[in-house]
Amino acid sequence: MFSICVRDHFMIAHSFSGEVFGPAQKLHGATYVVDVEFRRRELDPDGIVVDIGRAGDGVRAVLAALNFRNLDDEPAFRGKNTTTEFLALVIHERIATKIAAGELGAHASGLASLRVTLHESHVAWASYEGALGR
Amino acid sequence: MFSICVRDHFMIAHSFSGEVFGPAQKLHGATYVVDVEFRRRELDPDGIVVDIGRAGDGVRAVLAALNFRNLDDEPAFRGKNTTTEFLALVIHERIATKIAAGELGAHASGLASLRVTLHESHVAWASYEGALGR
Amino acid sequence: MFSICVRDHFMIAHSFSGEVFGPAQKLHGATYVVDVEFRRRELDPDGIVVDIGRAGDGVRAVLAALNFRNLDDEPAFRGKNTTTEFLALVIHERIATKIAAGELGAHASGLASLRVTLHESHVAWASYEGALGR
Amino acid sequence: MFSICVRDHFMIAHSFSGEVFGPAQKLHGATYVVDVEFRRRELDPDGIVVDIGRAGDGVRAVLAALNFRNLDDEPAFRGKNTTTEFLALVIHERIATKIAAGELGAHASGLASLRVTLHESHVAWASYEGALGR
Amino acid sequence: MFSICVRDHFMIAHSFSGEVFGPAQKLHGATYVVDVEFRRRELDPDGIVVDIGRAGDGVRAVLAALNFRNLDDEPAFRGKNTTTEFLALVIHERIATKIAAGELGAHASGLASLRVTLHESHVAWASYEGALGR
Amino acid sequence: MFSICVRDHFMIAHSFSGEVFGPAQKLHGATYVVDVEFRRRELDPDGIVVDIGRAGDGVRAVLAALNFRNLDDEPAFRGKNTTTEFLALVIHERIATKIAAGELGAHASGLASLRVTLHESHVAWASYEGALGR
Repeated sequence: MFSICVRDHFMIAHSFSGEVFGPAQKLHGATYVVDVEFRRRELDPDGIVVDIGRAGDGVRAVLAALNFRNLDDEPAFRGKNTTTEFLALVIHERIATKIAAGELGAHASGLASLRVTLHESHVAWASYEGALGR
Repeated sequence: MFSICVRDHFMIAHSFSGEVFGPAQKLHGATYVVDVEFRRRELDPDGIVVDIGRAGDGVRAVLAALNFRNLDDEPAFRGKNTTTEFLALVIHERIATKIAAGELGAHASGLASLRVTLHESHVAWASYEGALGR
Repeated sequence: MFSICVRDHFMIAHSFSGEVFGPAQKLHGATYVVDVEFRRRELDPDGIVVDIGRAGDGVRAVLAALNFRNLDDEPAFRGKNTTTEFLALVIHERIATKIAAGELGAHASGLASLRVTLHESHVAWASYEGALGR
Repeated sequence: MFSICVRDHFMIAHSFSGEVFGPAQKLHGATYVVDVEFRRRELDPDGIVVDIGRAGDGVRAVLAALNFRNLDDEPAFRGKNTTTEFLALVIHERIATKIAAGELGAHASGLASLRVTLHESHVAWASYEGALGR
Repeated sequence: MFSICVRDHFMIAHSFSGEVFGPAQKLHGATYVVDVEFRRRELDPDGIVVDIGRAGDGVRAVLAALNFRNLDDEPAFRGKNTTTEFLALVIHERIATKIAAGELGAHASGLASLRVTLHESHVAWASYEGALGR
Repeated sequence: MFSICVRDHFMIAHSFSGEVFGPAQKLHGATYVVDVEFRRRELDPDGIVVDIGRAGDGVRAVLAALNFRNLDDEPAFRGKNTTTEFLALVIHERIATKIAAGELGAHASGLASLRVTLHESHVAWASYEGALGR
């Protein structure tokens, strides 16, 4: 299995509901340093996993729609705790949608899976990994 | 698959038996920077993989039982080479025991697997990854 | 010159006033990974720069007073932009106060200076460095 | 599954053919920081995954054959784009050959798989992972 | 003293002249991960060291003029060894020129000094630090 | 001021005397990841700070004399606490001696100062910085 991975980041405010979150129930924030790993069984005709320029642009566009926001005010997350693991899934879905729409190039339809990792500090990260398309 | 990971560290002395270990047969030591990754197929009712506060406390407790020790003197490791990969397994088993005992919360019983990685320097690490019982 | 440095972090929400801040004028947030470097010309009678246990506790206490907050609501920062460089200065002052009060041990009065660095992402950090005592 | 990983690096010049590579079609270069992860289901009789000294020597030898080269001039890569993901595969094959030849020790025949990761900057990496021997 | 630092990178080919460079006399290449630290005695009227958006754009522009090049072919470096420390000086001068020209904003004239660090691998870096204008 | 820095590591056992060290009074150990920064006002006739090959060899030799030891048994450290900051000074002195003896090349006599940093974990480091003789 081949992979390529690109790193970018976004910065948001949010709060959580539920006793399990302790002091994080208050409005606070985070920088998420995001690694998006694209996986593919065989290289495409150009000898690559995916066009890394387009992949980086796609990741940047997905993160730009979250960056500099208070996630508590986002209609898309109404009634949801925007935990690090949940945000990893959201980003996975949004990049998968771009791939399906051909925005990462025609060969990107051959990608097997995607792993999205969000580093929230030097001592904690979360990720979601799942298959692409069919 | 969802993951969350917490990082902590411990510092020990030890020596190894066997020619394959070369100069490491002498008493020396190491700092191990430890990443414990908790994996789960679906998020729990709170929208998380595991309570990260309890997970961090559990990891800290397991490492505290090793920290500032000479592992050559530990009865638990009599006759064993406490290599990095062996210690990854030991920490995996001890955290798995805490999960089974409910110390990481009731929902932690839904965790699928655990990966424990020990960084011994900027150029070497070892890990053990295994499923969690039922 | 000798130094020791300890690393910790905190997570906050805030917004900025002024056109220069662009999209960061909206409520957003950040994880700050903080390095506090303590400097001293000669080692103290114990052969150290400062008691690293007390130093780490002092840093943790200073960061705990900021962690999981919306800095826009903090009376101490009324009318101020809580930029990364400004927060580095604030943390510098608060640790200096603890040192002057003897909370980092009697020998800590011999510290020469302090450098506080806040990493806000994998591509940006800010710091404040200044002398201690008189 | 147990793993150990060793890190090393090499520095090369090269250029790419194909519009998808944009400005990278010109002669340029890269530092690749390489992580080679050796995987094994059970520890060997010495309680290790592989002799880390021999593993590091094997990786160093494989990278030395690429280091300080213009890859456009290497007969082995004639007609190939030496992309990061392609080079990960090349290094995987060359280390696998050394393992098969017994150069990493007799017990290395019990290794299950190998993952080779090449970090080309602080924001991009590629890897190839595949099974070993039979 | 206050600092802010931004990180970016560029990828080049080059070779060196002189026996001291050993195998690096052959055409090879490097990724340089670049940290540019801007220093200032007092914060500017906006409470910042420099507009981090403009600073990042300035650094990107300076690195773009080097990126994806064979430095052996650059007229500006004729007869020079483009060592890591030399390139740190070149980048320092080019950013200083932009500051003097007002490209980093009017307040940037109050910057005291600049430190440019080029990481060429996980085990080596070089830097140049010098005062700015008058 | 120009700098180049090389990174290496060593692994030791030791214990400390004095209540201030708490649990570290017991025999334990550490991995020290060491950064040695060589500083020079002007580049030498080869356009470099120091021959990085010789510098790396010098650092490796100094660390090899400490690596895989129990520092409590070293005559050189009798009656001393081998704290991280103390070891930074020791390594500084030993490299300075090599420079004075010409082992890093004839031009190395033009080096201005040396900073030695020992990372003992992901959250703590210590350093010693001092001028080089004449």
